Amino acid sequence: LNHKHRLTTFGDRGMSLEHEINKSNAYYLAKGIAVVHKKPTPISIVKVDYPKRSAAVIREAYFSKASTTDYNGVYKGHYIDFDAKETKNKTAFPLRNFHRHQVEHMRECVRQGGICFGLIKFVKTNEIYVFKATDLFSYWDAQYHGGRKSIPKKVIDQRGYKIPYRLEPLIPYLDGVNKIIHI
Amino acid sequence: LNHKHRLTTFGDRGMSLEHEINKSNAYYLAKGIAVVHKKPTPISIVKVDYPKRSAAVIREAYFSKASTTDYNGVYKGHYIDFDAKETKNKTAFPLRNFHRHQVEHMRECVRQGGICFGLIKFVKTNEIYVFKATDLFSYWDAQYHGGRKSIPKKVIDQRGYKIPYRLEPLIPYLDGVNKIIHI
Ligand SMILES: [Mg+2]
Ligand SMILES: [Mg+2]
Repeated sequence: LNHKHRLTTFGDRGMSLEHEINKSNAYYLAKGIAVVHKKPTPISIVKVDYPKRSAAVIREAYFSKASTTDYNGVYKGHYIDFDAKETKNKTAFPLRNFHRHQVEHMRECVRQGGICFGLIKFVKTNEIYVFKATDLFSYWDAQYHGGRKSIPKKVIDQRGYKIPYRLEPLIPYLDGVNKIIHI
Repeated sequence: LNHKHRLTTFGDRGMSLEHEINKSNAYYLAKGIAVVHKKPTPISIVKVDYPKRSAAVIREAYFSKASTTDYNGVYKGHYIDFDAKETKNKTAFPLRNFHRHQVEHMRECVRQGGICFGLIKFVKTNEIYVFKATDLFSYWDAQYHGGRKSIPKKVIDQRGYKIPYRLEPLIPYLDGVNKIIHI
């Protein structure tokens, strides 16, 4: 295996995109580059047992709808907010991968001066892009006015920032964020 | 009941501090002033049932340790990060109310240019303060070098920003944040 081949195989070892991002965030944190965390999965707890001499056990709980995106944090004084999405589609990213409340949340954050984006992975080709929320909004809004229900990959390639897998961090997505900041 | 009395009773109606902050955040969000959310409680899920024709039920899960503070978001382009703490102590705020990882998390965020603070409530007198993380760090670090294990209320009153309860938002803590920003 040559070096280039080893790098390109990082993404398809069965590690989930979430895990890859968490590893990248751990690297950024350890190096003092950025502080970005995944938010815990929101659940609503119905029943908790408190056994003697051991930890409380949640016995009944349900997954509840997230009202925000999955990741946020701070980088060079900027508020960062994003969600990670995977698609098996090869030619376009279906907008149904985003939930309305996630898009609305990013809209509010952008209004406050935050840097928001989608981290979009095309799983068939193992390609990852940072795609600005403001570009996402254009397509999102247009779908309700006769527009298409997906973003062509060509557009993502043109307007987004392709993030090649690396050794460390695995997904150097802040390279894309730097470009958004300097626009 | 006169108006002033009604206002001062807001804080002791049995509403939890978390609930009061969530209400305040909902107001800030609705008015387009700031986007701040409480993070979900982190749990580790062991067992999930998937009953036919109904929602997945978590049947075994445990509370896990948070690696960050409870609240973060974006305000006027600033990254905001804080935790809310209550004490029944009347003359000082015991440092044990903070967990080490929360303090370390705020230290990382401050390094990245974030605005971090404790939202400290003295429950006996119903007083709330925004207390800058950098002031907290001084006391936190000093406790390991022979310093006291609490912050005198007098110091919180002098160096922090007292946030009187209001009708809307209930806890106008961004008034304190404004002062941190303009230091
Ligand atoms: Mg997600
Ligand atoms: Mg807390």
